[in-house]
Amino acid sequence: MDQFNMRPIGYVSCPFKDTTEIPKGLGAKHETEGRLNILPALEAGLTDIEGYSHLIVLWAFDRLESSANLDLIVTPPSDDRPHGIFTTRTPNRPNPIGLTVVELLSREKNSLLVRGIDMLDGTPILDIKPYLSNIPAEKLRRGWLAEAEARKS
Amino acid sequence: MDQFNMRPIGYVSCPFKDTTEIPKGLGAKHETEGRLNILPALEAGLTDIEGYSHLIVLWAFDRLESSANLDLIVTPPSDDRPHGIFTTRTPNRPNPIGLTVVELLSREKNSLLVRGIDMLDGTPILDIKPYLSNIPAEKLRRGWLAEAEARKS
Repeated sequence: MDQFNMRPIGYVSCPFKDTTEIPKGLGAKHETEGRLNILPALEAGLTDIEGYSHLIVLWAFDRLESSANLDLIVTPPSDDRPHGIFTTRTPNRPNPIGLTVVELLSREKNSLLVRGIDMLDGTPILDIKPYLSNIPAEKLRRGWLAEAEARKS
Repeated sequence: MDQFNMRPIGYVSCPFKDTTEIPKGLGAKHETEGRLNILPALEAGLTDIEGYSHLIVLWAFDRLESSANLDLIVTPPSDDRPHGIFTTRTPNRPNPIGLTVVELLSREKNSLLVRGIDMLDGTPILDIKPYLSNIPAEKLRRGWLAEAEARKS
């Protein structure tokens, strides 16, 4: 079977030492600032990144408690009803890849200061991609999350 | 050093047999339809996905020509000037992860019919996440891509 071996391109530096400190659930705000410290050998790959306001960060859930079985249906923090894992951002997924969109505030050499951190201090970063475009708002449907928000309000 | 081993959760089925067939560069439209065929054992993870109009697909560049050296600065199809790889979607990156936002048209059991395919037939899928929100348009800056578009028009 195909396998792909991923290695960190850098590590997150931020205030969150434990997952309980990270805002979760409906209406959670992600305003925390932190740094994406890219390996010095890869610094040239950041050339011209200052022109972008937002970045997509792919990272690894590196501190999951391993469990023998993967639950394919989970009840996420933002709802009281169960949903398929691929409709959630739950950490327990077949491949432990997290995705966060952050706002780029500034760069110092190989270190990016960003806002919108929702990962733990020391999290391995797998990739950074530019955030290029939005889905038109009138075309976007947000499934059970929109329903959970409507029930709460 | 940390390493993360990723395995496909399924495979793309689409018309593109060669990368030259995939639209690239400024103004490229991604309207092609295809299927995300998820492994039958993971089908329950798709529960409730029909409620979402758009999905983030993470996938593996599985047919890269291996090269001894990774170029950290590249000239992408959408510009005639060089930029750091982390400001581009270039396939040749430290971890071979691709990201595509697709529109979900329908689901049949473990198979998702989607629009917006820009990967090759047979591409391994690593993860699917719900597309939840946009960056406010007035806050979004698109760096060299916006400049290249302005020069072209």
